[in-house]
Amino acid sequence: MLSTMQDVPLTVNRILAHGRLVHGRSQVTTWTGEGEPQRRSFAEVGARAVQLAHALRDGLGVRGDDRVATLMWNNAEHVETYFAIPAMGAVLHTLNLRLPAEQLTWIVNHAADRVIIVNGSLIPFLAPLLPHLKTVEHVVVSGPGDRAPLEGSHAQVHEYEDLIADKPTTYDWPEPDERQAAAMCYTSGTTGDPKGVVYSHRSIYLHSMQVNMAESMGLTDRDTSLIVVPQFHVNAWGLPHATFMTGVGMLMPDRFLQPGPLAEMIEREKPTHAAAVPTIWQGLLAELNARPRDISALTQVTIGGSACPASLMEAFDRLGVRVCHAWGMTETSPLGTVAHPPAHAIGTEEEFGYRLTQGRFPAGVEARLTGPNGERLPWDGRSAGELEVRGPWIAGAYYNGPDAEPLRPADKFTEDGWLKTGDVGTISPDGYLTLTDRAKDVIKSGGEWISSVALENALMAHPDVAEAAVVAVPDDKWGERPLATVVLKEGATADFEALRTFLAEEGGIAKWQLPERWTVVTAVPKTSVGKFDKKVLRRQYAEGELDVTRI
Amino acid sequence: MLSTMQDVPLTVNRILAHGRLVHGRSQVTTWTGEGEPQRRSFAEVGARAVQLAHALRDGLGVRGDDRVATLMWNNAEHVETYFAIPAMGAVLHTLNLRLPAEQLTWIVNHAADRVIIVNGSLIPFLAPLLPHLKTVEHVVVSGPGDRAPLEGSHAQVHEYEDLIADKPTTYDWPEPDERQAAAMCYTSGTTGDPKGVVYSHRSIYLHSMQVNMAESMGLTDRDTSLIVVPQFHVNAWGLPHATFMTGVGMLMPDRFLQPGPLAEMIEREKPTHAAAVPTIWQGLLAELNARPRDISALTQVTIGGSACPASLMEAFDRLGVRVCHAWGMTETSPLGTVAHPPAHAIGTEEEFGYRLTQGRFPAGVEARLTGPNGERLPWDGRSAGELEVRGPWIAGAYYNGPDAEPLRPADKFTEDGWLKTGDVGTISPDGYLTLTDRAKDVIKSGGEWISSVALENALMAHPDVAEAAVVAVPDDKWGERPLATVVLKEGATADFEALRTFLAEEGGIAKWQLPERWTVVTAVPKTSVGKFDKKVLRRQYAEGELDVTRI
Repeated sequence: MLSTMQDVPLTVNRILAHGRLVHGRSQVTTWTGEGEPQRRSFAEVGARAVQLAHALRDGLGVRGDDRVATLMWNNAEHVETYFAIPAMGAVLHTLNLRLPAEQLTWIVNHAADRVIIVNGSLIPFLAPLLPHLKTVEHVVVSGPGDRAPLEGSHAQVHEYEDLIADKPTTYDWPEPDERQAAAMCYTSGTTGDPKGVVYSHRSIYLHSMQVNMAESMGLTDRDTSLIVVPQFHVNAWGLPHATFMTGVGMLMPDRFLQPGPLAEMIEREKPTHAAAVPTIWQGLLAELNARPRDISALTQVTIGGSACPASLMEAFDRLGVRVCHAWGMTETSPLGTVAHPPAHAIGTEEEFGYRLTQGRFPAGVEARLTGPNGERLPWDGRSAGELEVRGPWIAGAYYNGPDAEPLRPADKFTEDGWLKTGDVGTISPDGYLTLTDRAKDVIKSGGEWISSVALENALMAHPDVAEAAVVAVPDDKWGERPLATVVLKEGATADFEALRTFLAEEGGIAKWQLPERWTVVTAVPKTSVGKFDKKVLRRQYAEGELDVTRI
Repeated sequence: MLSTMQDVPLTVNRILAHGRLVHGRSQVTTWTGEGEPQRRSFAEVGARAVQLAHALRDGLGVRGDDRVATLMWNNAEHVETYFAIPAMGAVLHTLNLRLPAEQLTWIVNHAADRVIIVNGSLIPFLAPLLPHLKTVEHVVVSGPGDRAPLEGSHAQVHEYEDLIADKPTTYDWPEPDERQAAAMCYTSGTTGDPKGVVYSHRSIYLHSMQVNMAESMGLTDRDTSLIVVPQFHVNAWGLPHATFMTGVGMLMPDRFLQPGPLAEMIEREKPTHAAAVPTIWQGLLAELNARPRDISALTQVTIGGSACPASLMEAFDRLGVRVCHAWGMTETSPLGTVAHPPAHAIGTEEEFGYRLTQGRFPAGVEARLTGPNGERLPWDGRSAGELEVRGPWIAGAYYNGPDAEPLRPADKFTEDGWLKTGDVGTISPDGYLTLTDRAKDVIKSGGEWISSVALENALMAHPDVAEAAVVAVPDDKWGERPLATVVLKEGATADFEALRTFLAEEGGIAKWQLPERWTVVTAVPKTSVGKFDKKVLRRQYAEGELDVTRI
């Protein structure tokens, strides 16, 4: 029996129309580095988004599901593209301006972008790539920056403001099917080609509602959100859509992402909320310690991307700023969990522990843990497994080019359609996630998992150890066993037996998890962002480059 | 181009599973009138809902989209039915226990309910109807009350607790299409047969998210909601679903709806939120004035159903309780608007005015105003038109029996599928609705509307007038003109010219809107709920029963 409810699709168009009309007074404020910031009301942003859609359609011939890419900082124009492109039925493709040139080239060609909208300040990055971007017919430039490097390009070059000037501010939008593509974003995995995640109108709409739910960020038009997390990174955690839906002010740092300008914009513009990765907050904290500012308006800070150290959380607590952990990934739109403590823990000594978890799942994100042998693990706060998730704003495949079927690699999606997050952790009985390892870094020994991170943390607590990395190496009997790689402090000598005893007696490591293989290195190899590069260690071991002692 | 998002339906099943698991500690507390209330955790309620589903399927043979009706107060068992019935694929049909017996009989037969779950205390109401309820095969009784009146019925009688005892607490639910029927509720219009609104899994899920958004009620597991609005009335404004989704505690008054018990439950159980119609709050306020209680936990009260008088809002403000207006109807699930003032008005003299409006539309509710000649009216805060709404939790038709096509009467739905609310009002440029009249009560004069309510309010401000009702009567020249029906205060004499002058000079009524037809009556006819019965006045006029003076 069908319901008698109206069949109204959940679309980005609806968010645009609503924010422009009902929240027309709310503002997108973009930092300009000097003087007054640029202030644009939602009414203006909405009208300009409509003008942009006309310009793309009539001026540049964008049609159907053409991809229109952006290579932009967080600013009002980038917000305009967020609404114009999906509303006209095309697909917004946000390009990560931190990627190596070859990867970005690969991505633009794979998505077959027809247009790139670029901030003037990023032309020096785009121009050398442009000859390799065969599908790109038009480049639209917004904001200050020398245009000269684009001269002689195969693509037509346009000025954003010229293009939208005098265009109509109403548009007879198509009403898209809510499952149609609205936006896409590539993840740059550590191995293999980048993978495209394609968000639907439906997923963006539902995700926006979830962000605005009181249990998540709970923002209203009384709030202003400082959106530091880049718009090219999972749609800035969905914040431009979510804030436009409910009239939350947006404070956009543009290219001014250094601690000084950030502290200044907080003091001057008084955002109530902010969203960024931990490193940004580390820098801001140092800045505030060096040059104290009035940041009293800021009450809630959402931290994601990687785990927030307890010390950072405590430091912000002392400043009266409530830091709230969240977990997600490009494939989860990204809201997966938010770490507001449960009611029963508030005011107890459990509260801080809950805040250090990755957070609690909302109703829209189903979660399960899968053990090393594919078994389903209980939510007991102890059993560690790979996190798999399911829900209406979670990817079930990757984009595989304009004419190909979506890609569903078996290491990323289960047979029943759940996303394998590649994260290993535990879930408490009340639904709080604690991540401990990346799945590729755990050691599968005799059908059980050994946490490399737990071994590393225990080792690094020893007074002789400066740094330690543990990786899985092949073992005839157990499948895999841990190899402990240790950097000693100056003056210390290697005593593997003593370290092993220390792990068991002080580190709480179970006997069967203790490494037999040990090696001393002068430094742990690191990736460009400073993480342990375990791929390198595994290769060095395989090729016999390490001097391994077996005990 | 399709997105790569998972295709996961929005279902009541998901709310049930999530609330039971992640918010298992949250509680449904049911008032028992004496001693301790009944306390049941979401984990228990969820498990019992699953047991009920088994009982309905295996014990009573409920299949497919069978309708299972409830005739119950607000209590934990009623919450269990909210989840069990839709999750198993059947349709929950909540029966309004305030309806006249004939109307309820008509409704049960129209819905072809196979089962009725009834509270023991309501058996005296159900038993005399039962012989006329031909489709009802089973009656399930929950809670105290004499069962004897059900003896000899054609339906089998069961005890709720016996039925669910020992049933499994897991169930391999079907995964319903999100547009499938989940629940239904009949509206009892003042004319014609009652009309059935059928909610879908999707509409319930989306509405629950909206209720929990910070811009609406914004509740979390730190809240407890006193749900006074009956569960048979638009799913208690969607609160049982919304609270189960986010772990908000439910405080249920069962049959103890008098001001004394309500004040006692607020003082003892400390809800942070409450939802009810204005008359309940009027009674509670009188009770609190007579016997002050500690109600300091209660910070937010949602009032809907009819407009909240300013005096009542101010009285609660003085008690530290923030009253928030909301507007909706059975056809809108019901959340249509919520009257949190906009950010720019907070702390200004405009703030209270915004709180007295019906409130602001969320993104999920599109609204437009249609004038007397079908023209679209601007959102200027002045132009009054009939409110039409569109959205994923708004009805587009009525149920028309098990085998018939849905009903789309032209006075209820526009050709393009919008709901005609039957309410007349204005919308401000920032999306706040102010209702002034029911569409059937406005006077259409020469292609313009005259507000009967504005005339009545202006008339009642005159010192000689005790009560006044204005209705439309036919007019050869103008189509319709207003008839002013006046009840004079004791000792006053009728001077219609003076009243007419008063309307123009003191009441601010435009000249063309002033009534020519006047009559004095001893009392304005009223409906059973105390509203002016304008049908009766129009009939009396038509049949020449009124002594009308024309000036």
